Amino acid sequence: MTLSNTDRAEAVRHLVHPRSIAVIGASADLGKINGRPLKHLLEKGYAGRILPVNPKYREIAGLACFPCIEELPEAADLAIVAVPAAEVIPAIEALARRGIRAAVVFSSGFGEMGAEGRALEDALAQRARDCGVVLCGPNCLGFVNAFEQVYATFSQYADGETGPGPIAFVTQSGAFGTAIAALVRQRGLGLGYFINTGNEADLGFCELMSSVVEDPRIRVAAGYLEGLEDGAALVRLAQRCQALGKPLVLTKVGRMASGVRAAASHTGALAVEDAVFDAVIRQYGVLRARNEEQMLDMLEALSQPRAAAGPGLGIATQSGGAGVMMADRAEEMGLAVPELAPATRARLAEVMPAFGALGNPVDVTGQFVARPELLSESVVALLEDPGVHVGIVWLQLMTAHVDTLVRIFGEIQARTTKPFLVCWVAAPEEALRRLRALGIVVYGAGERAVEAAAALVRWHAFRQRSAGVPAEALPLPARLPEGLVEGVQPTVQATEWLRAAGVPMAPVTLARDADEAVALWRTAGGPVALKIESPDITHKTEVGGVLLKRNDEAAVREGFAELMRRAAEAQPAARLSGVVVQGMAGGHVELVLGVQRDLVFGTVVMVGIGGVLVEVLKDVSFRRAPFDADEGLRMLGELRMGALLDGVRGQSAVDRQAIARMLAGLSQWAAAQQDRLAELDLNPVLVGPEGPLAVDCVMVLRDPRAG
Amino acid sequence: MTLSNTDRAEAVRHLVHPRSIAVIGASADLGKINGRPLKHLLEKGYAGRILPVNPKYREIAGLACFPCIEELPEAADLAIVAVPAAEVIPAIEALARRGIRAAVVFSSGFGEMGAEGRALEDALAQRARDCGVVLCGPNCLGFVNAFEQVYATFSQYADGETGPGPIAFVTQSGAFGTAIAALVRQRGLGLGYFINTGNEADLGFCELMSSVVEDPRIRVAAGYLEGLEDGAALVRLAQRCQALGKPLVLTKVGRMASGVRAAASHTGALAVEDAVFDAVIRQYGVLRARNEEQMLDMLEALSQPRAAAGPGLGIATQSGGAGVMMADRAEEMGLAVPELAPATRARLAEVMPAFGALGNPVDVTGQFVARPELLSESVVALLEDPGVHVGIVWLQLMTAHVDTLVRIFGEIQARTTKPFLVCWVAAPEEALRRLRALGIVVYGAGERAVEAAAALVRWHAFRQRSAGVPAEALPLPARLPEGLVEGVQPTVQATEWLRAAGVPMAPVTLARDADEAVALWRTAGGPVALKIESPDITHKTEVGGVLLKRNDEAAVREGFAELMRRAAEAQPAARLSGVVVQGMAGGHVELVLGVQRDLVFGTVVMVGIGGVLVEVLKDVSFRRAPFDADEGLRMLGELRMGALLDGVRGQSAVDRQAIARMLAGLSQWAAAQQDRLAELDLNPVLVGPEGPLAVDCVMVLRDPRAG
Repeated sequence: MTLSNTDRAEAVRHLVHPRSIAVIGASADLGKINGRPLKHLLEKGYAGRILPVNPKYREIAGLACFPCIEELPEAADLAIVAVPAAEVIPAIEALARRGIRAAVVFSSGFGEMGAEGRALEDALAQRARDCGVVLCGPNCLGFVNAFEQVYATFSQYADGETGPGPIAFVTQSGAFGTAIAALVRQRGLGLGYFINTGNEADLGFCELMSSVVEDPRIRVAAGYLEGLEDGAALVRLAQRCQALGKPLVLTKVGRMASGVRAAASHTGALAVEDAVFDAVIRQYGVLRARNEEQMLDMLEALSQPRAAAGPGLGIATQSGGAGVMMADRAEEMGLAVPELAPATRARLAEVMPAFGALGNPVDVTGQFVARPELLSESVVALLEDPGVHVGIVWLQLMTAHVDTLVRIFGEIQARTTKPFLVCWVAAPEEALRRLRALGIVVYGAGERAVEAAAALVRWHAFRQRSAGVPAEALPLPARLPEGLVEGVQPTVQATEWLRAAGVPMAPVTLARDADEAVALWRTAGGPVALKIESPDITHKTEVGGVLLKRNDEAAVREGFAELMRRAAEAQPAARLSGVVVQGMAGGHVELVLGVQRDLVFGTVVMVGIGGVLVEVLKDVSFRRAPFDADEGLRMLGELRMGALLDGVRGQSAVDRQAIARMLAGLSQWAAAQQDRLAELDLNPVLVGPEGPLAVDCVMVLRDPRAG
Repeated sequence: MTLSNTDRAEAVRHLVHPRSIAVIGASADLGKINGRPLKHLLEKGYAGRILPVNPKYREIAGLACFPCIEELPEAADLAIVAVPAAEVIPAIEALARRGIRAAVVFSSGFGEMGAEGRALEDALAQRARDCGVVLCGPNCLGFVNAFEQVYATFSQYADGETGPGPIAFVTQSGAFGTAIAALVRQRGLGLGYFINTGNEADLGFCELMSSVVEDPRIRVAAGYLEGLEDGAALVRLAQRCQALGKPLVLTKVGRMASGVRAAASHTGALAVEDAVFDAVIRQYGVLRARNEEQMLDMLEALSQPRAAAGPGLGIATQSGGAGVMMADRAEEMGLAVPELAPATRARLAEVMPAFGALGNPVDVTGQFVARPELLSESVVALLEDPGVHVGIVWLQLMTAHVDTLVRIFGEIQARTTKPFLVCWVAAPEEALRRLRALGIVVYGAGERAVEAAAALVRWHAFRQRSAGVPAEALPLPARLPEGLVEGVQPTVQATEWLRAAGVPMAPVTLARDADEAVALWRTAGGPVALKIESPDITHKTEVGGVLLKRNDEAAVREGFAELMRRAAEAQPAARLSGVVVQGMAGGHVELVLGVQRDLVFGTVVMVGIGGVLVEVLKDVSFRRAPFDADEGLRMLGELRMGALLDGVRGQSAVDRQAIARMLAGLSQWAAAQQDRLAELDLNPVLVGPEGPLAVDCVMVLRDPRAG
């Protein structure tokens, strides 16, 4: 009895919000893994029914204990399964028979244990689906729903105070996730949900997060990922978070080659090419935190309700040097540190001591200890400057002045509407506690405050952007005709398809013999390039298959013969279709455009700049197809060598819009062919005053039935 | 009576280690700026004599108070000056008359207050030098010598516990410096010296640090900089630290253009081009910390006595994901995360649970709670692996197991000799305190532990390297002849000088008329480049002054006339010497080499790669001249596009050693001419199978008397 999508969503809701919980394999020792959930549920006051199951006991901690699942007095909304690995599948079957539709499985001994464990896990997943039981785990710490005191977990995190807050945190790692949850608590932030997904045999990160992010008490979604298989699910989750107006912050390990290696041995999940992951989540408005500290910093800023309506950062500081450091970091993060308006400067001049600095950063010096209004008036003036969208106030120590400072910051908060972050280095613990109690965000280091401000700015920019055309609404061009043969497509044909879809392609013609080549050269009316054409040769230059600037009959004739000879020599078995004859194209900027099938995210479009240097510098940008020209512009904006597009050493600038339209058109065509297209290279694309033009094209189709 | 260098060094020693301290302008209110030093000196038990000076009092806090400097009963080793700005110069004069040779001046109202204040500061500096008084400040918080309880400061830092430790910390910023000092204390590290240099009218960062770093109780030197004028002094300090075997860690703000702007308005110091600063301090073995948190992390690692004898990082972790994150960061930081030796794997296999991972990172899981030997045995095995030079152990929370874990880490420390760092996320405070008491270094975040390990590795590499030829011992080539005219030098002449110094230069000849040009073309025996030659034209391409590949008489003749005509049109006043005729050079890699006079560090050599892209990507590396070929190799190693040197797309690799020798030769020649050479561009330098060859040269000399 496989669940329908609706029933499945309903079962996940029951899992997370159970009115009753059965604990299969419950222990009377409340310190053990299978006893700890009982302890937490009782101590923290879970209001639903708790139903321990264990043939050894009649009662545990005052609760009636049942000998087996079959004898449970009701079909609980959730079962916690803490039995040896070999007993898990029978337990799930028994749950299904008893009408229980959701389980969290602590048990280890599955995919993390090598081939045998993986087979057991596959069998478990299959059985759970067949029985219609949704399943979190196995090999997980379980979860906490702090709003309803649901402690279906044995995590150390549950040992401490776990008052609910506006953050939903879902983690693939148990140990690292517990550490992050503890850090959230140290910061005085609250987790509404803490969920460890473990091996994700059934429910994965996206499905669980998608469920809890709907809770109106949740304002921010945070995830820790080690591997991801279903990119489309992540895209849907990101889109839903955008629609709900709730930022999604992700930390994903495995950025580098060495990391990918270690991840493979750890999670068994397919390693996502990190550059693609990074680009695609940005495309859909996800904020990425590079590590747990940055995640916490972002969560702290995003948990407060004020939005940064633009990139302008105003800095008030007690140390000029700290101001410089923060301004530097702001520039690196793409924030502006604007000059202040004359009216703001005039206001500041009224309150500031002579040796302060009225620019941005504003140096308020340490004088505010004697004159508290100095700090409040200058910060209020700074925040009211029209170019400032978020403020940072930097100070240090001031152990003797906590009362005054807490009062000043409270006053600033009451008098302003823009977000401001306090950076208080070596702050007394009491100050941190009291400011956080007022809902004021406070950091211990200047660069971290700037990075958090940048997250606020980026989140607002994402929200603005998402008001545009959603990718789903983009018109897709016609699909390729049926019956095509897989493999490399004829250049003339591939060029024709792309041109029909609006992708600017240089005209190409095919000569099957030398006479045809000469005739085509005459038609071209100028120097031509000759390129070998074969369905078996993808990298023409590697077989010496390209000749440039042929411009007389003899050169064209010899060229044809030469290319056929070279190709036959290099690849004797290759089928040679002839030689492509093509006019020489101009353009002083060289791009590479490409399409690839990403194992996680599907059809992905790439743009790179710089010819041979694309390989050396890996200066490329990716997006998931389809997308519009605005997204294409953002891709170009990410290229480190983007200045080449704007003209260097007297070269004229090229038309970024035209390149962006080409990228968007290519992405839409590729999306329409996503089940057929294996890969596509437009390399090079030359860009001159007339815009971009692809002068070479290699298109490879696949059998759509290959999945 | 200006002090000799020796007397000056002696006066600085007295300043830092005074046997008696006069407090000029002492207040009876021990909470005020001019009362706080008395309070600290008394409370913390300074053993020398304290001599307050103030006509208003006969006694302060039980100490006899003197009406004026003249009536002091002895020539104190140090005077603290806390009087209004206008009274500072007379006070210094009085100190000199009384035989007092060292002062720390708290007073503000100098360079930080605009033009008038700067004039007063200049007068103060001059007067102090004339009188033979060394002076720390003005506008500074003073300093602490914690070994001898010298609290010549009103910094908030002195309010807390300031037990001495192995770190000497000198800061140009008072507020930021105080914050850093407080963070040092929070970490349980101790500052032997805390010195705020303020406006540096007389004693600067380098001179004060050079004095205290000699103290054998100091193991690590740490500095916070906002501006630097005397690069040579910093180089000498760095060299002395190397000789003493004491790492020097610097944080300098002002990395970016916006930062430089703010710094200029703040400190008044000349902004150092940050790329040059960064490269030169690396050249001399200084560790740079990008912010205060990284500085603290580095200080913590460097304060422990074990050295990392290579780049191999061994990671033991309780979370696979944390291991991946740390391995990623290690790769980014240039560390190795080596595969473990078979013997190590065998040892690990004996102790590890079945679901642990035996690679590197070693995943020890959470099982060590039940079996403590699991952790100690696996970490010891990891550290004893021959490829591992430094270890990191990652764990989290474990609030209930502090005793066990402290014992295990103590045991690991006792059984090993290589450095290891503990990363304990969300650690109980007690655990941090107890581990630090054992001398065990502990961090709260994995990436930070990796960065600290990288500092240990880099410091050891610097020490190894400094065993080579010191820059001072490099042979310098002959100096340029006297009597040269400043400005752009004739290309033929400049080329000759450089070739004589061993720099590979393409042969050039000068044609004064078209007939000579034709004759020189015939001699060249192949296509030539023609370039306009004029002492008034530095950028030939900008006036259309270069023609390539001329290879017949008419083309050479016309080319000569064309270049003369273009130059005359573009710059009618330019003196035209003729046209340089030069054979066409080959080489598939294009470099730029240059020499510039840096305002802080003097003669600096640059290498860049990639032709037009040098400007776009700023892919350049700097070093202070002179240096040897090993340093030249390291410069090449810093280039992001360095892969171009090793051959891409079938190109052959070029000889890095030959380029490094060219850089070293250029640096030695430039160092020999440092008072004469204003700038030098070798652009391009083409590198092919025969090595590098400079095919264009612009050399500008200056008047050595210009200073």
